[in-house]
Amino acid sequence: MNFLEERILKDGIVKEGNVLKVDSFLNHQMDIELFNEMGKEWKRRFADKNINKIMTIEASGIGIACIAAQHFGVPVVFAKKAKSINIEGDVYTAEVESFTHKNKNQVIVSKKFLNENDHVLLIDDFLANGCALQGLIQIVHAAGATVEGIGIAVEKGFQMGGKSIRNLGYKLESLAIVESMDWKTGEIVFREQ
Amino acid sequence: MNFLEERILKDGIVKEGNVLKVDSFLNHQMDIELFNEMGKEWKRRFADKNINKIMTIEASGIGIACIAAQHFGVPVVFAKKAKSINIEGDVYTAEVESFTHKNKNQVIVSKKFLNENDHVLLIDDFLANGCALQGLIQIVHAAGATVEGIGIAVEKGFQMGGKSIRNLGYKLESLAIVESMDWKTGEIVFREQ
Repeated sequence: MNFLEERILKDGIVKEGNVLKVDSFLNHQMDIELFNEMGKEWKRRFADKNINKIMTIEASGIGIACIAAQHFGVPVVFAKKAKSINIEGDVYTAEVESFTHKNKNQVIVSKKFLNENDHVLLIDDFLANGCALQGLIQIVHAAGATVEGIGIAVEKGFQMGGKSIRNLGYKLESLAIVESMDWKTGEIVFREQ
Repeated sequence: MNFLEERILKDGIVKEGNVLKVDSFLNHQMDIELFNEMGKEWKRRFADKNINKIMTIEASGIGIACIAAQHFGVPVVFAKKAKSINIEGDVYTAEVESFTHKNKNQVIVSKKFLNENDHVLLIDDFLANGCALQGLIQIVHAAGATVEGIGIAVEKGFQMGGKSIRNLGYKLESLAIVESMDWKTGEIVFREQ
C-alpha cells in the first residue's frame, strides 16, 4: 500500500452514493507535503517522458498540479470554467459534465498557452466517469499538442473513466485506484498496482 | 523595482477598462518558479507572524497559495464557489462579487477546516475592489480565527480595496501595486514600496 492509499484509509470518508470524501487533505484543505510526495511519484512514473507543460482543470486540480510541476520544472496551464471577460481572443473549448456538481461547464484554454510543440502531462485530483479528463484531452488534441501522460490522485476503478482512457492507449497513472467502497462499514478496497 | 514588477512590465498587457492581463504567468498559465519567489518574499515580510494555515479562494489563488505554503510549512484551505454536494454539514459562507466575471458567488469553507485556534495568512492573485478578500476575512472572523496577514500578488492601487483593508488595520503585503496604467501607451506605474 502506498502513501496515498494509506492516507485515504486514515482520513478518507465513504458516503452513500459512492462518494469518497478526501476534503481534509486533497481538495478543500490541502496537505502540501502530501502533494509533494505525489509529484515525486509522478516524476518517477513519467521519467521516460519529455514533458514541457502540465495542464489541469479548475479548481481542485490546480494545487496538485503546481506542486507536481516543481518536480518537472515546467509551467502549469489550467483550463477555466465558463468565459471570463479577461480571456481574450481565440480559445480552445470543451464541454465538461461534473459528477460532483451535476452540471455542465464550458472549459477553455487560451490558444496562446498551448500549441503543437507542447508535450503535456495532465493532472487532476479525481477520475470517475472521465468527463473532465476527456475535455482536457480534446483541448490538447485541438491544439495539435501531445498528451505524454495523465496523473490522477484518486481513481474510482469501478467507474468507466480510467478503463476507457487506458483503452485509448494513454499512459494513465493513478496513485490510488478504489476498487470498491462500502459506506455502511467504511471499508475501502484498492486495486493492486 | 522587484522581481514581480519587472515581470509585469515584461509580460503584462494593459487593456481598456483598467484590465491588466497577466495570464501568461500568473492566472491562466502559471510560472511556478515565479510563485516560489513570491512565497519566499511573503515569508520574509511575515517572518514575525505565527501562521498555521493559508487560505485562498478558487480558482486563480490556489496555485500561488500552495507554492507559498511550502515556505510556511502549513496546509492551504481554499474557499469554494457555490455549493457542492460533496461539502457536507456546516460551512461558513460569504457572498463575493467578481470584478472579472461581473457576477456574485456564494463562497464557502467547511467548519471542519477553520476554527478559533487558526492563525491565517490570506493569499490571492489580485486585489482590486476587495470583495473577494472581504469575503475571506468575514469567513475567518466567523470561525473565530485570526487574520495574521494578507499576501497579494498584484494590487490595483487606484481602486479602493487595498486602502480600505489597510484602514482596518490588517497587515497587507502586495508584491506589486499598480498606481496607474494606460492602455493606449501600455505604460504601467507602480507605487514605491
